[in-house]
Amino acid sequence: MGLIRVDWRASFDLTGRVLLYLAGPLSFPLFLAMLYGESTLPFLAAIGATLVLGGLLRGLPGDPGDLGPREAFLAVASIWLLVAVVGSIPFAVAATGTLAHPINAVFESMSGLTTTGATVLEDFSVHGRSILMWRQLIQWLGGLGILVLATAILSELGVGGAQLMDTETQSKNVSKLTPRISETARLIWGLYLGLTALAAVVYYTLHLTGLAPQMDLYNAVAHAFTSVATAGFSPEPASVGAFAPIVQWAVVPFMIAGSTSFVLMYFALKGDPMRLLKNEEFHFYLGSIAVFAAVVAGALFIDPTVGFGGEATIRHAVFNVASMVTTTGYASTDFDLWSSAAKHMLFLCMFLGGMVGSTTCSIKSLRWLVALKAFKRNLFTSVHPEAVRPVRLSGKPIEEEAIRDIYAYLLLSIIIFTLLTVFIVVDSARVGANVSEFEAMGAAASTFLNIGPAFGDAGPYGTYNGFPMTTKTAMILLMWIGRIEIIPVLVLFTAAFWRS
Amino acid sequence: MGLIRVDWRASFDLTGRVLLYLAGPLSFPLFLAMLYGESTLPFLAAIGATLVLGGLLRGLPGDPGDLGPREAFLAVASIWLLVAVVGSIPFAVAATGTLAHPINAVFESMSGLTTTGATVLEDFSVHGRSILMWRQLIQWLGGLGILVLATAILSELGVGGAQLMDTETQSKNVSKLTPRISETARLIWGLYLGLTALAAVVYYTLHLTGLAPQMDLYNAVAHAFTSVATAGFSPEPASVGAFAPIVQWAVVPFMIAGSTSFVLMYFALKGDPMRLLKNEEFHFYLGSIAVFAAVVAGALFIDPTVGFGGEATIRHAVFNVASMVTTTGYASTDFDLWSSAAKHMLFLCMFLGGMVGSTTCSIKSLRWLVALKAFKRNLFTSVHPEAVRPVRLSGKPIEEEAIRDIYAYLLLSIIIFTLLTVFIVVDSARVGANVSEFEAMGAAASTFLNIGPAFGDAGPYGTYNGFPMTTKTAMILLMWIGRIEIIPVLVLFTAAFWRS
Ligand SMILES: [K+]
Ligand SMILES: [K+]
Repeated sequence: MGLIRVDWRASFDLTGRVLLYLAGPLSFPLFLAMLYGESTLPFLAAIGATLVLGGLLRGLPGDPGDLGPREAFLAVASIWLLVAVVGSIPFAVAATGTLAHPINAVFESMSGLTTTGATVLEDFSVHGRSILMWRQLIQWLGGLGILVLATAILSELGVGGAQLMDTETQSKNVSKLTPRISETARLIWGLYLGLTALAAVVYYTLHLTGLAPQMDLYNAVAHAFTSVATAGFSPEPASVGAFAPIVQWAVVPFMIAGSTSFVLMYFALKGDPMRLLKNEEFHFYLGSIAVFAAVVAGALFIDPTVGFGGEATIRHAVFNVASMVTTTGYASTDFDLWSSAAKHMLFLCMFLGGMVGSTTCSIKSLRWLVALKAFKRNLFTSVHPEAVRPVRLSGKPIEEEAIRDIYAYLLLSIIIFTLLTVFIVVDSARVGANVSEFEAMGAAASTFLNIGPAFGDAGPYGTYNGFPMTTKTAMILLMWIGRIEIIPVLVLFTAAFWRS
Repeated sequence: MGLIRVDWRASFDLTGRVLLYLAGPLSFPLFLAMLYGESTLPFLAAIGATLVLGGLLRGLPGDPGDLGPREAFLAVASIWLLVAVVGSIPFAVAATGTLAHPINAVFESMSGLTTTGATVLEDFSVHGRSILMWRQLIQWLGGLGILVLATAILSELGVGGAQLMDTETQSKNVSKLTPRISETARLIWGLYLGLTALAAVVYYTLHLTGLAPQMDLYNAVAHAFTSVATAGFSPEPASVGAFAPIVQWAVVPFMIAGSTSFVLMYFALKGDPMRLLKNEEFHFYLGSIAVFAAVVAGALFIDPTVGFGGEATIRHAVFNVASMVTTTGYASTDFDLWSSAAKHMLFLCMFLGGMVGSTTCSIKSLRWLVALKAFKRNLFTSVHPEAVRPVRLSGKPIEEEAIRDIYAYLLLSIIIFTLLTVFIVVDSARVGANVSEFEAMGAAASTFLNIGPAFGDAGPYGTYNGFPMTTKTAMILLMWIGRIEIIPVLVLFTAAFWRS
């Protein structure tokens, strides 16, 4: 009944192809290195490594077949792992500042590729401009990768209820994933590129008109790469807080677009905007940003130690809540200095996420919305056991199996987050570097859910460098597992995966 | 289709009956007050109040019908709330020490009735012996109440997957709950009483043989009341740590029995022990105690600051892990002084709980076991989408609906715990009494999941008195909601509950 052995040849063939492609984008920082007179060796080494490794994987003996569910899971897991390793080569070869340690280099690369945005950099000025731009670019590539993954693979395989995604072209044919991937990539690619270009133009226009003197061409491109990708790296240690208030306002719509379903945005551009505007997940997503921004603004207004003005209070509340909910991880100010109430609201925002089928990370609005509707339905059937009432999403009834998968996904996420928190606290206590529970919770959520900044030393203007190497290694693994939605890695550890 | 209006008359009739019964147990501390020459007014006032209130509720106009699901939910919610209020009258009238504040009196009473064991007492010596014994007795009554609730009501209504409980007599006839309650009470009552009497005899025998000089008759009875009830109050500020090591060892089996399915223990006594011994939940429950005890013992062994001997290390590890997993909440030593690793293991233990159909609180082993099995099955179907494989418990396939209910219950518990944690931190910060995140997490879990002690000021040798009154009020509500398994309270807030 189709329970044949996993065709690892097909998985590694796709991985090899992606590694060969990687040489293309690596030539952009190579070009910048030549332009700025910085060392080209980091990028030449990475290009060489990715070509050799990619060629080896493609040249493995045997004929690659089609991607089924198992082959897709293996390909996804190996692509995100190997690209992160290859992506760390420029950092490791440049070996400037904290990136000189190989684990730090892999941390920064994995944080980049997974669009997390947690950094181990301490002194930004010791790193070359080409290296800092590679950091930005790998996030943009990670955003593109996740778009293809989310819309073409996870939705077909129904990972954690992702089959509920609104996508006209869903084929439910899990034995023919390869054509589906190319088709989706074609559809999504233009929109992603267009939004990124638009962000760069808007940011740079603010510079040209004199409204944002620091937003030069380099910064405009660097931040365009990480806005729509909801990724969050910045070449500036003060993140978007380094720029004029108008820049902060300009970034918000791009973070929000990056976390909006690309499929629905595509249909909106094709003349059917109602499909997006009437989508319940879209309402829930925007509503959660509005509610949390209002609560945070309220908490900042009543806090005597903050003392922002009226506009700045609203701006910082909207910006940082949107940054957390969309999982971008930019900061417009050091929110680690805020009151306990405001920080806890940001912490809760970390678990939300934007819409499925976007570059967003974390749990995602769809799953919370379905879980809330299913809770409500459960209460109804508790008092009326004889009643049959399906849960509906944007009017359509959804399968009980999808609800169960979503519950399982939420629970699994929370359990992994909890275990990572305990690991961080205990591991830090072990080396005598007492990390508070809240800092550990923030860092665990922020890495596993791919947000970026957290609180305390790992705050938005801080660094993850202070954590023990063991903790950073655990974070590398959990950024990887979290970004590809857990299941593709977990299945590799089951006997059923490898058995024929 | 049976969607008729809730028959609140039936709910309040049962509530009234329970309140009338309450006069009986209240005469035990009344007797002690006379014996010790303490004021009898606290108990006379409570007896008067419970008779008047009970009579009023039974005398409401109209004929009470049978208990259906809705009537049962309303009865359960009102019984636990009103008995806690009546139970606070002796504390409030005696008005000694911290109990003089009415919110503290209700906190102590609710903590007692829900078998939580969190205390607001500071100086134990200012309270009369009759008042301290009422504190013990209300826990024992709460344990009995929960046994009836768990085996006769929640399992019939299938709250959070409780329909999976192994009970021969399950009728699935939710329109005839009243006879079911009497029948179950008859079956369980003797076993509960017998185990309590056995605990008292064992504890007092240790005293008579000179092995435990401090375990006099008063203490033997007081601790027998709160061992099998997995409740955790002690008239001693140092809890079971006030007694000889042999007492601590003697308490462990009674905590474990209190958290074991009373239905399966009943069958074991009737000559069918295999049904208990082959029960998968039983294995999981004992296994989790063993694993966590080993880990905690390891953490204590390598901790240079602890310095227990060999026997004491194992005893404290086993005792406090068993106390947390069974949700009793006794302590054999001040574990708040332990290392971060050991304390975090105890924190994780709080979420486990014993078996369904016992006096245990928290999530319960059955739900974790089913969730783990369902996770494993989900991973299997992720790679083999065409395969159909039911989840099995002790060999029997279980319904998908039960899995979904269990997922929902776990998730709901974690969400409520998280919101309570945030409330505690923010509320404490508001009054300038900075409570650390870990202390707040501990206190939130320990009250909502009905464990008792937590960490920091609310540690096993500490008190909850320092929390703001707003926090204590929230804890009162969440001890109530947690003990009756959430759903009976939540449904009261849905329109569907009240609509005909
Ligand atoms: K991010
Ligand atoms: K307890």
